[in-house]
Amino acid sequence: MPLTVPVILGSVRSDRIGIRAARYLIAQLEARGHEAPLVDPAELKLPLPDRMYKEYPPGTAPDELERLAILYRRSDAFLVVTAEYNHGVPPALSNTLDHFLEEYYWRPSAICCYSAGAFGGVRAAMPLRAMLAEMGMPSIPALLPIPRLQNAITEAGTPSEPRLEASAGRFLDELTW
Amino acid sequence: MPLTVPVILGSVRSDRIGIRAARYLIAQLEARGHEAPLVDPAELKLPLPDRMYKEYPPGTAPDELERLAILYRRSDAFLVVTAEYNHGVPPALSNTLDHFLEEYYWRPSAICCYSAGAFGGVRAAMPLRAMLAEMGMPSIPALLPIPRLQNAITEAGTPSEPRLEASAGRFLDELTW
Amino acid sequence: MPLTVPVILGSVRSDRIGIRAARYLIAQLEARGHEAPLVDPAELKLPLPDRMYKEYPPGTAPDELERLAILYRRSDAFLVVTAEYNHGVPPALSNTLDHFLEEYYWRPSAICCYSAGAFGGVRAAMPLRAMLAEMGMPSIPALLPIPRLQNAITEAGTPSEPRLEASAGRFLDELTW
Amino acid sequence: MPLTVPVILGSVRSDRIGIRAARYLIAQLEARGHEAPLVDPAELKLPLPDRMYKEYPPGTAPDELERLAILYRRSDAFLVVTAEYNHGVPPALSNTLDHFLEEYYWRPSAICCYSAGAFGGVRAAMPLRAMLAEMGMPSIPALLPIPRLQNAITEAGTPSEPRLEASAGRFLDELTW
Repeated sequence: MPLTVPVILGSVRSDRIGIRAARYLIAQLEARGHEAPLVDPAELKLPLPDRMYKEYPPGTAPDELERLAILYRRSDAFLVVTAEYNHGVPPALSNTLDHFLEEYYWRPSAICCYSAGAFGGVRAAMPLRAMLAEMGMPSIPALLPIPRLQNAITEAGTPSEPRLEASAGRFLDELTW
Repeated sequence: MPLTVPVILGSVRSDRIGIRAARYLIAQLEARGHEAPLVDPAELKLPLPDRMYKEYPPGTAPDELERLAILYRRSDAFLVVTAEYNHGVPPALSNTLDHFLEEYYWRPSAICCYSAGAFGGVRAAMPLRAMLAEMGMPSIPALLPIPRLQNAITEAGTPSEPRLEASAGRFLDELTW
Repeated sequence: MPLTVPVILGSVRSDRIGIRAARYLIAQLEARGHEAPLVDPAELKLPLPDRMYKEYPPGTAPDELERLAILYRRSDAFLVVTAEYNHGVPPALSNTLDHFLEEYYWRPSAICCYSAGAFGGVRAAMPLRAMLAEMGMPSIPALLPIPRLQNAITEAGTPSEPRLEASAGRFLDELTW
Repeated sequence: MPLTVPVILGSVRSDRIGIRAARYLIAQLEARGHEAPLVDPAELKLPLPDRMYKEYPPGTAPDELERLAILYRRSDAFLVVTAEYNHGVPPALSNTLDHFLEEYYWRPSAICCYSAGAFGGVRAAMPLRAMLAEMGMPSIPALLPIPRLQNAITEAGTPSEPRLEASAGRFLDELTW
């Protein structure tokens, strides 16, 4: 069954490497017949949260929030791609997530974390699990950490090692199951 | 000895109650003879991090980052006032913090967390401890949680209960010691 | 459909109050027609982990591990009742949980946290969410924190306030759904 | 100035590799002229916490708790060596730590985390930071993660790579400073 799985990226840096992980996972999801739209904070340019989407009277929310709400409501699962800033969740990610709440309810989520260094961003994934649970989209057990992402996936989006393909495959199996 | 202790607030909401906790703690610090400037993300309007302060060539960083860097370098300690969003650190706070790193080194920090509900934001304080440690400003053991902040401190900045004054006093004793 | 939901308690103290929360939730689950056996570390007296259950050759594990393995394999969900020790997970709980792994897979879990003080043990619940996810039994979004448990539930197991009954009801609805 | 720095190990497994990290760090501390006694839960065999040390009337606590209390009171800092069990703190570590509280106050601590795999146990270090802070011994910013410890340090206690010596050196500099 084709699913809708938004891929939410958590970085706005111009030289961000995370976009490689997002694009690779989108391609893998699409190859499996799913719809996997990229939710990109660099394009969305959402302000720091003053009002949540649900705090706007119907029809008055900014366009980009309205579009996200429509997308989220028809989604089956969420894939979150996160960097690690100071051992925590990047503000570009929490800011993208925090504008919504009920729209996420009752769907599973999955966490791909990455870093330029050796530990793959796994420290950010831990508080992120707590946040995703509170947001009503508990994360699946499998975690996909990608250390040294700049080497692990080329700019063109090809994994450099078969091991990543295998682990990404199992990760997506678990999410889409 | 008079100290410089920036009070970093982590909310930009127009109806934020956190400003009451920040103002109360600033008044207490000033009453003890310290300098306690408010670092307010609603005024700073820092963008989501593309470049950190240190990634700008000297003299080319935006004014508000330059002023913060000067303040942080001459500071003796940091007081962080945080809400809890979805059991995590609010993006307005991580965004304010993440623009700097070396500027914080070798000073202690302290966490005041608050909520409109019963649990005082203590869940956000836990990952925040890890972030502050990684930023080189480990947090003091004492935590100042303020549940139901809207009742605990009046708009004029007066605590409604003597208990808060006592615990805030011990908290600031520990930070300024 | 009647479910099997082990209730895993995380304290061995002789004067533990957590047993009240465990017994209350067991009674509620049984009233709904489910089987809810208590997993009590004070009775089990499991040693600190040298070998996990799965590291014993078949048939050679200690009796109490063998019985737990049989129970866990036929379970539909797990309910974990945790105190908070130094803002973390009590060793009596992690020790009870860490002896098993694959036996938990593919079932949901739920967290009831409690404290003698005001914050209901919610700080321990956050790293516990990460542990339960890694153990293959991701926790449901709803959390049941019980502050001042010694007053909230009598020794006889009756809640002192209707509010707890309502929130426990919604919590169990979500777990058994 | 010679310091007293207990090295608290968090594993009781017979085939534990963590003992290599503990012995290596003890040797390094001793080479710097410090006293670095090993606190080994496998020898101590402390029961899961029923009563904390301070809950015993003076002179009635078990010998091993009495000896630890004397050691801790005259210590200048604590070095904690932790594995990662299910992304959390091993019960052998939390159990060793949780028997005491005031005895730790006002000293810094440092975290060495390790794993047999690639991520060096850094996930366990995050909730451990929160616990150590609450215990009154906030952890220094530097973290010493040792991935693939079984290869990184030989059984005889010699690091296989100069990089580990350099990072351990900086880590101990920061702790003893």
